[in-house]
Amino acid sequence: RIDGGRLWASLMELAKIGATPKGGVKRLALTDLERQGRDLVVGWAREAGLSITVDQIGNVFMRREGSNPALAPIVTGSHIDTQPTGGKFDGNYGVLAGLEVVRTLNDLNITTEAPIEVAFWTNEEGSRFVPVMMGSGVFCGAFSLETAYAAKDTEGKTVRDELARIGYMGDQVPGQHPIGAYFETHIEQGPVLEDADKVIGVVPAVMGLSWYDCVVTGMEAHAGPTPMALRKDALQVSTRIMQEVVQIANRYPPYGRGTVGMVQLFPNSRNVIPGEVKFSIDLRNVSDELLGTMHDEMLAFIDKTRAESGLAVSIERVSYYPPCPFHPDCVGAVRAATEKLGYSTMDVVSGAGHDAIYAARLAPAGMIFVPCKDGISHNEIEDAKSDHLEAGCNVLLHAMLERAKV
Amino acid sequence: RIDGGRLWASLMELAKIGATPKGGVKRLALTDLERQGRDLVVGWAREAGLSITVDQIGNVFMRREGSNPALAPIVTGSHIDTQPTGGKFDGNYGVLAGLEVVRTLNDLNITTEAPIEVAFWTNEEGSRFVPVMMGSGVFCGAFSLETAYAAKDTEGKTVRDELARIGYMGDQVPGQHPIGAYFETHIEQGPVLEDADKVIGVVPAVMGLSWYDCVVTGMEAHAGPTPMALRKDALQVSTRIMQEVVQIANRYPPYGRGTVGMVQLFPNSRNVIPGEVKFSIDLRNVSDELLGTMHDEMLAFIDKTRAESGLAVSIERVSYYPPCPFHPDCVGAVRAATEKLGYSTMDVVSGAGHDAIYAARLAPAGMIFVPCKDGISHNEIEDAKSDHLEAGCNVLLHAMLERAKV
Ligand SMILES: NC(=O)NCCC(=O)O
Ligand SMILES: NC(=O)NCCC(=O)O
Repeated sequence: RIDGGRLWASLMELAKIGATPKGGVKRLALTDLERQGRDLVVGWAREAGLSITVDQIGNVFMRREGSNPALAPIVTGSHIDTQPTGGKFDGNYGVLAGLEVVRTLNDLNITTEAPIEVAFWTNEEGSRFVPVMMGSGVFCGAFSLETAYAAKDTEGKTVRDELARIGYMGDQVPGQHPIGAYFETHIEQGPVLEDADKVIGVVPAVMGLSWYDCVVTGMEAHAGPTPMALRKDALQVSTRIMQEVVQIANRYPPYGRGTVGMVQLFPNSRNVIPGEVKFSIDLRNVSDELLGTMHDEMLAFIDKTRAESGLAVSIERVSYYPPCPFHPDCVGAVRAATEKLGYSTMDVVSGAGHDAIYAARLAPAGMIFVPCKDGISHNEIEDAKSDHLEAGCNVLLHAMLERAKV
Repeated sequence: RIDGGRLWASLMELAKIGATPKGGVKRLALTDLERQGRDLVVGWAREAGLSITVDQIGNVFMRREGSNPALAPIVTGSHIDTQPTGGKFDGNYGVLAGLEVVRTLNDLNITTEAPIEVAFWTNEEGSRFVPVMMGSGVFCGAFSLETAYAAKDTEGKTVRDELARIGYMGDQVPGQHPIGAYFETHIEQGPVLEDADKVIGVVPAVMGLSWYDCVVTGMEAHAGPTPMALRKDALQVSTRIMQEVVQIANRYPPYGRGTVGMVQLFPNSRNVIPGEVKFSIDLRNVSDELLGTMHDEMLAFIDKTRAESGLAVSIERVSYYPPCPFHPDCVGAVRAATEKLGYSTMDVVSGAGHDAIYAARLAPAGMIFVPCKDGISHNEIEDAKSDHLEAGCNVLLHAMLERAKV
C-alpha cells in the first residue's frame, strides 16, 4: 500500500506554486510558474532515482528501470498545468500518484519486470494554448508538432518560444517513446461517484466530443420604435437552438450531453435588439453512432430554424474526437485491483477528455477516478478527500504491478 | 417655407465634429468634442441674433424675442450628444431644425408675439452617464440635480466636473426657465413611416418604459462529466424567460414591446455549464395599464420559472417612466401644419424616449417624426433624406407659428 500522507503532502507542496487567495491554483501551461512546478516534480523524481526524458513538445517521462530491458514501460501520468481558476488536484493528482507509486516500490525494494514510468504531458488544459491535450495529441499524431508549435496565447507568444524559454524543449521525437500500457488517475470532475457514495470509478471509456460555433445574424434595431412583427431578433432565434441542444442530449440518455457555455451578443446594449449572437455548442456521447445522430439532429434543427425564422444561421464544427473505449486488459486490471483492495466501486464513463484518450491510440490504456467534492472542477474550490486520493493511488499501484509484473 | 439646403448644410457641418470613418458620429456628452458641437451651434445662434441662457445642468436655451414680453416662449429642441456609434441625425436634427426655423423667420422678417427658443438638453443618450435624458429629467424634476451631478462615466469622471471643465455649467436653476409650449422634431428611429411610405409622423404619445436586470443563479460545472439530470444550468432557465419577454409583448399588440438586449454569462467558457446569467429586460407599451399588466405577467412567469427550476432567479426594476400622451393642442398644431403643407402623414407612437416627455411635464408638448433609412438609428449607418428633413422642419415652423402667433 502507498503512503497517503506523503501523497497528500506532495500535492500540497506542488499546490503552493501558483496558489490563489481563494485556495485554488493558477499555473498556466509553459509559464514561469509551470516551469517551477515541472522543476519541483522532476527534482522529486531524481531524488527517487528516476531518469528523465523530454520530447520535442515538452512531454516528460520519468523512468524506473525494470529487470527486463526488452519490455516497454508501463506508464502513468497526467499534467501539471492548470486552468486560470483551477484547483489543486486536476492533473496534478495523476502525476503525483505516479510518483507515489515509484516511492512505494522504492521503499519496498520491489523490482518490476517492465520499467515503470511517470509522465506529464504539455498543455492539457488548453486554457493558454489550443488545442487542448496538446502534448499527448502530438505524441499520438492527432495533430502535428508544427501545428502545436505555432499555437499562440492572447499575447501572441508561441508554444515553440515558450517551451524553449522555460527549458523544456527536449530532443526526443514525440511518439517515439515506447509505451507498454498507460494508466491515469484523475478526480472525476463530476458528481456521479459522490452521489452514489463510491470510492473508485472504473473508467470503461471516455465520451466523444463535438464542439461547434453557431452564429445567428438578424438586424440590430432600437428596442422601442421597432414593432415586434418587423424584428429580426438574433437572440430569440438563438434561444430556440440553445434549448434544443439540451433536448437533443436528453433524448440520448444516459450519456448524452448538450451544453451552451459561451454566448456573445452584438451590440449587447439594453435598448438594442441583438443583431448578432455567437454561441458555442458542446455535444458528447459515449457511442459514436449516437454522437453522430445528435450531430445530425442538431444540423436538421438549425436548418429548420433558419427556414422558419428567415435569419442567417451558420454552424461550424471547431473540435472533435470520437468516443474512446479503454482496453479491456487495462480496464480489467483496474477492476481487479479495486476488488482486491476492497474499495466500493462503480463504472464511470468519463465525460471529460484526458491525455489517456490520446495515449490509448498507441497502447492499451485505462483510467481510475476518485470523487471530488460536489463534482466541482475547473474551479478554485475544487476539493478531494485524502482517503479517496490514497485509495486511487493504491489501485494504480496494483494495476500497474499486474501489467509490469514483479 | 424653410431652406432645406441650408438645414442640410448645417447638419453636415455639425456632423464633422466627431465624425467616424464609417460615416457616423461619436460625440459623447460633455466631452471636448461635444463642447465643440455646442460651441458651433451657439455661435450660429449668436449670428442669428439669439440670446443664450445656460442652466446648472448645462441645458442651453437660445432666444429670439417676441413682441409680447409677458408671454412664455414657444420652445423647440433636442440634443447634441450622440451614441458611441451614433449617426448624424439623432438629436442634432431637432436642434438644427429649430435653428433653421429662426433663420427663416429672420429672412422673412417675421415677428412673433411669444418669443421663440431653441434648446439643447444635456446627455440625452445616456451612453456616457446614466440616467438617460438627464438634462430634461433634472429640468422637470424627475430626479435631482445632485443625482445628475454625481453620475460617473467608466473612468470615474463626474457630470459636475465635466460640465465645469467644458464651460457649460450655467447659473439658472433647472426648471425655472419658462416654457409656453414645446415641440421636438426627430427621426423616427423605427421603420413605420418608411414601411407606410409617409413623410410626416404625428406623434400622439411616447410609450412608457420599464427596464429590469434579471439574474439566474445555477451551479457552474464541467460540461462533460455532469449528467443532464444533475445540472443547474442557468442559461437554460434564462432562455425560457428570454422567450417569454417576447411572448408577453406579442400578447399586447400593437404597442407591446419586449426586448432582451444585453446578456452576460459566468464563467462564459465553452465546456462549463453556465453558473450565472445576467440579462436585461426592456418592456414598453403606450398604455400604462397594459404596461402594468405586462410587468405583472413577467413577474408571475419568473415566480413560476423559479419554482419549476429550483434555481435562484432575481429581478430588479432599474428604470421606469410612464407612457406620455402629448397635449392635444400641440398634437393638433402638428397635424394642422402637416395637412396645410400637404405632406403624406400618419400617427406614429414613439417607442423611444425623448426629452419631450420630460418637457411635457411642465408645458404642452408635441413631436414631429420624419422617416430614417430602414428604421435604423443608434448606428453609424443611420441615414435620412434631405426632403424629409426639410418637410419635418416646415411642419415645425408652422406648428410653432400657430402657437407663438404672428
Ligand atoms: N479534463 C478536462 O477538463 N479536459 C478538457 C476537455 C473537456 O472539455 O473535456
Ligand atoms: N431616443 C432614444 O433613443 N432614447 C433612449 C431611451 C430609449 O428609448 O431606449
